[in-house]
Amino acid sequence: MVRDFVDMETEERVRRYDRAHVFHSWSAQGKIDPLPIAGGRGCEFWDFEGKRYLDFASQLVYTNLGHQHPKVVAAIKEQAERLCVIQPAFASQPTAELAHAIAELAPGDLEMVFFTNGGAEANENAIRLARMYTGRHKILAAYRSYHGATHGAITITGDPRRWASEPAISGVVHFCGPYTYRSSFFSKDEKEECERALAHLEEIIQYEGAHTIAGIILETIVGTNGILVPPEGYLQGVREICDKHGIVMILDEVMTGFGRTGYWFGCEGFGVTPDLMTCAKGITSGAVPLGAVVISRKIADAFQDRVFYGGLTYSGHPLACAAGLAAVTAMKEEGVVENAKMIGDEVLGPGLRELMDKHPSVGDVRGRGCFWGIELVKNRETREMLVPFNASGAEMGPVGELGHAAMNRGLSLMIHWNVIMIAPPLIITPEEAQRGLAILDEVLEITDRAVS
Amino acid sequence: MVRDFVDMETEERVRRYDRAHVFHSWSAQGKIDPLPIAGGRGCEFWDFEGKRYLDFASQLVYTNLGHQHPKVVAAIKEQAERLCVIQPAFASQPTAELAHAIAELAPGDLEMVFFTNGGAEANENAIRLARMYTGRHKILAAYRSYHGATHGAITITGDPRRWASEPAISGVVHFCGPYTYRSSFFSKDEKEECERALAHLEEIIQYEGAHTIAGIILETIVGTNGILVPPEGYLQGVREICDKHGIVMILDEVMTGFGRTGYWFGCEGFGVTPDLMTCAKGITSGAVPLGAVVISRKIADAFQDRVFYGGLTYSGHPLACAAGLAAVTAMKEEGVVENAKMIGDEVLGPGLRELMDKHPSVGDVRGRGCFWGIELVKNRETREMLVPFNASGAEMGPVGELGHAAMNRGLSLMIHWNVIMIAPPLIITPEEAQRGLAILDEVLEITDRAVS
Repeated sequence: MVRDFVDMETEERVRRYDRAHVFHSWSAQGKIDPLPIAGGRGCEFWDFEGKRYLDFASQLVYTNLGHQHPKVVAAIKEQAERLCVIQPAFASQPTAELAHAIAELAPGDLEMVFFTNGGAEANENAIRLARMYTGRHKILAAYRSYHGATHGAITITGDPRRWASEPAISGVVHFCGPYTYRSSFFSKDEKEECERALAHLEEIIQYEGAHTIAGIILETIVGTNGILVPPEGYLQGVREICDKHGIVMILDEVMTGFGRTGYWFGCEGFGVTPDLMTCAKGITSGAVPLGAVVISRKIADAFQDRVFYGGLTYSGHPLACAAGLAAVTAMKEEGVVENAKMIGDEVLGPGLRELMDKHPSVGDVRGRGCFWGIELVKNRETREMLVPFNASGAEMGPVGELGHAAMNRGLSLMIHWNVIMIAPPLIITPEEAQRGLAILDEVLEITDRAVS
Repeated sequence: MVRDFVDMETEERVRRYDRAHVFHSWSAQGKIDPLPIAGGRGCEFWDFEGKRYLDFASQLVYTNLGHQHPKVVAAIKEQAERLCVIQPAFASQPTAELAHAIAELAPGDLEMVFFTNGGAEANENAIRLARMYTGRHKILAAYRSYHGATHGAITITGDPRRWASEPAISGVVHFCGPYTYRSSFFSKDEKEECERALAHLEEIIQYEGAHTIAGIILETIVGTNGILVPPEGYLQGVREICDKHGIVMILDEVMTGFGRTGYWFGCEGFGVTPDLMTCAKGITSGAVPLGAVVISRKIADAFQDRVFYGGLTYSGHPLACAAGLAAVTAMKEEGVVENAKMIGDEVLGPGLRELMDKHPSVGDVRGRGCFWGIELVKNRETREMLVPFNASGAEMGPVGELGHAAMNRGLSLMIHWNVIMIAPPLIITPEEAQRGLAILDEVLEITDRAVS
């Protein structure tokens, strides 16, 4: 068993300094008690008392290779020894090599890479590229989406996390995407949901004026807002709409990129190539912050003679790119994407459907690869959500209890309102996945009791 | 001599992959030819042919400890071995310890730290904190400023880099800051510039309505827009105005923080403590991307029971914070801040003033510590800029030539329009600084020829 030896004195100091000096994301600072984490490896991490947790969320859906993959750690150490950083007006070896590797992996003519520090900045720059390329201003984005928290990224976000930052940037229009289980279009099945969601998008474009629309941005599979897998044909339909109107199609692959869905990029699973594809998270397995906009040759070429007015101090940061290059290489060498697909097809898919059969609080399960959602309901007939839209804190009731119970049993989950996200590292073994499913089986009894 | 051995084959590959796949910041992609950089140490970096460059810009004003400081490199390697990353809902040792160290160094009650990936995100979140804390919407920001390139950060920016991203966020109003050499207020000296700039700010506040203004953001010393040192009394005056009206005072210390001006934070040199202080760059010497908002106890306490609606995947990234902790520790142990002050007082200040005496194209020199600007003019009497406002490419004429000539002589400079920024690593020796000044002395003859 790999474990750092760390004494309780260290834990006490970490806890004290954290509470006194670290201001935490998305929190009321007086109502949290962040657990100090001492170490991690593979699909597990552990606290200072040595308690181990199986990570069924890949932290925030980014440790695609698990914690501390030896090739990624080695690459960081080697590049740290060689050259941590150089400014983006120069060329750097790991930057150029990672861009080359991504261009080889990405579908179609997605051949140029603009590197950022993370997903929010990638989406910010995708908006900027779409606007500059088309000379149009509006961006269409989906309700039930998350694209990051800088002012541009939070504006295109379609969940309540944007409310506190409004009004933000101009020219963003939200529309309803497909969500068959809770259809905005009163559809009876996936096929109808696809047709109606596309008709809705066309209708909104008609009202907004196609010639005013620079880009449409979508998460390939909606992440935090419920793991919403688009019905077959939807993304192809959006691609056709974009082509018809000269609109830039942007896919946010911050969560779905780098193997998560059993494909290198989620869009491959739907046979669609966007004009701009944003990435982050899994690109380095989180080891060093890095994001990217992967740009089609056609759009990149429009900036051959014309200045791209965007940039950042650490675009193409060598240490981050070295981590990314090692992560991509390890994924290739170790068949990680194939494993993600197998785990989805053979373990998580069947296992989650079994849990659904057994537990009345499970209304729906959906996903692919290592990217699944369990939607919890009070009643399968009415599909009433087990906790309200935008629930937090005490409102989370039995779902909050389920999360704590899982953590007590050594299973770390990411839960958003009434959806449990199942997104383990892509290197997970069938045995580990089964172990997580067994704990889920136990704790779903808590939510079952809330079924009426 | 420390040098990586790298063959020409590698250089050729880096150059080819870079041109084929790396989309560069702030550039027309077809008009650049990024030089591949092979390595760096201390105040120098070198290309694949082994040519060495003395870095008089600290890359983009961030390698405060120079390239590859051994303590920073060691800390990265150690933390990479231990635990690269954990999500921000947990507590982490390097994160808590760096926050503690910053709280000890920062002036006044700046005691809580919200970590980001860089300066743009720090400024984005400072705006957000000021708005949520006050319940007001407007942000006042200065012309001739740069605060980053995400939509919020580029909106508060007061230089032409924001034009291509407009319209951006709502509620931002720009005002004129002090700039004695080119006074917006027709002042005859520093004292009058201070009084008039404060009166102008009060007048704008009157028109905008003090009760509608959440925050005023300023670079402590304006960076890229000309190294504009505020006159004695100006920042104190802004502090008083903010206090009088209940406005949050935000100082952007992305460039001036972590020793750059000969103080730990630039604001200390003016005897002022802001309510929010944003940092990045020097916090890790650029080795791993990291930014921070340092928050006053008073503002942090307002989020004890109330949710802060902002966040990011990598807030408090352990690897980045380990690099930051090592950088801060090395700066303390090695007297780096004191060296920056000495270099400014004894070498750069006197040396640049000598260059001004000698070269008619130098209209003004100003700065402190390792943060100086040389303003180039066609004529000292008229103060006409040597190249126009917002000059780029061919318009840069003799100033562009000067930059190339310096690079050929092994001196790397950062130039913005008609201002050469002198911002070497804070570890620079008097001999290295003199070497750079001697090359400047040679190349200023190029701009002297353009004097009329």
